[in-house]
Amino acid sequence: MIKYPNGKVGTYSKKTITRKPVASGNRGMGLEGDINDSNLYYKEKDLCLITKRPTPINVVKVDYTHGAIITNAYFEKQSTTDYNGVYKGRYIDFEAKSTQSKTSLPLHNIPPQQIEHLKGVIRHGGIAFFIIEFAIKQETYLLDAQYVIDLVNSKERKSISHDFIIEHGHLIKRGYHPRLDYLEVVEKVYFKD
Amino acid sequence: MIKYPNGKVGTYSKKTITRKPVASGNRGMGLEGDINDSNLYYKEKDLCLITKRPTPINVVKVDYTHGAIITNAYFEKQSTTDYNGVYKGRYIDFEAKSTQSKTSLPLHNIPPQQIEHLKGVIRHGGIAFFIIEFAIKQETYLLDAQYVIDLVNSKERKSISHDFIIEHGHLIKRGYHPRLDYLEVVEKVYFKD
Repeated sequence: MIKYPNGKVGTYSKKTITRKPVASGNRGMGLEGDINDSNLYYKEKDLCLITKRPTPINVVKVDYTHGAIITNAYFEKQSTTDYNGVYKGRYIDFEAKSTQSKTSLPLHNIPPQQIEHLKGVIRHGGIAFFIIEFAIKQETYLLDAQYVIDLVNSKERKSISHDFIIEHGHLIKRGYHPRLDYLEVVEKVYFKD
Repeated sequence: MIKYPNGKVGTYSKKTITRKPVASGNRGMGLEGDINDSNLYYKEKDLCLITKRPTPINVVKVDYTHGAIITNAYFEKQSTTDYNGVYKGRYIDFEAKSTQSKTSLPLHNIPPQQIEHLKGVIRHGGIAFFIIEFAIKQETYLLDAQYVIDLVNSKERKSISHDFIIEHGHLIKRGYHPRLDYLEVVEKVYFKD
């Protein structure tokens, strides 16, 4: 159960709790909840419009006896990333990953189709990054996707070290509302000049 | 059953056929198939990266006896639009609507949350439009979302007339691959100068 210190329960919360442990075991509910809460905050403040893509589900059978109840379906692989949207006219696209390790994020947590997708985003001039949470340390970073793409391409490492992320990433401020102010970092990293 | 004149069956086709008649009865499968095919073409040619958002589904129960089979779930309302992505760094967001009428698209086909979403996209500098198909006439148009927002706000009309769409919209060329070359229109309308 996610505890919201401000007592707020977003419209997404129940769904998230119900669905996510099934759809993707490696991703902390806490991180996803934090990002969803932040996106809701940004929307309310009209700062940007970034949303979570629904989990793709292949529906096999629907029972229409009492409304439309899905009685047979299965989860599909997300072929893109979890979040995208718009900030100051620019396209924003990112994936959130949480790890229980104190020292690194395993790269096998990042499927090849997400790497391909993020490469495409960058080629087309979009802003692409990862939000990486070290759950035990309670630290969350924004890391530009190009670093992750390069690490995956090099095939030299099987994980991204905490040190690497400290060096090349940007710590995201935690708070109550927004829970994770990643937009402040986006502004600083991609819009400063 | 959608017939693809080029014999092509995209990875999306089976899913689309299975799911869409349930999820949204008012939207032609043909139009969605055409747009998905075009997006696949654009991706292959690396012209842009635009994808369909999965239909949001609330999962209630999952049976783990033989893998993860969803045994109880229901469709949720899409609170945004069906498609978004990136072209030349800009954020693109649109909704596709098909009508069997020869003279107009009923506005009640466009839920308030989509209007709110598209207003937000425009406020944040994104490109927002509708792709509107007159199925019987075999004509498809791109219409900037602001026209639709204004019509809905005015509350004077209950539909968008074919004449209005001809005057303010842009006919999208039909072909074999891409089936609907809407990106050509996006380029002309939003990137010319």
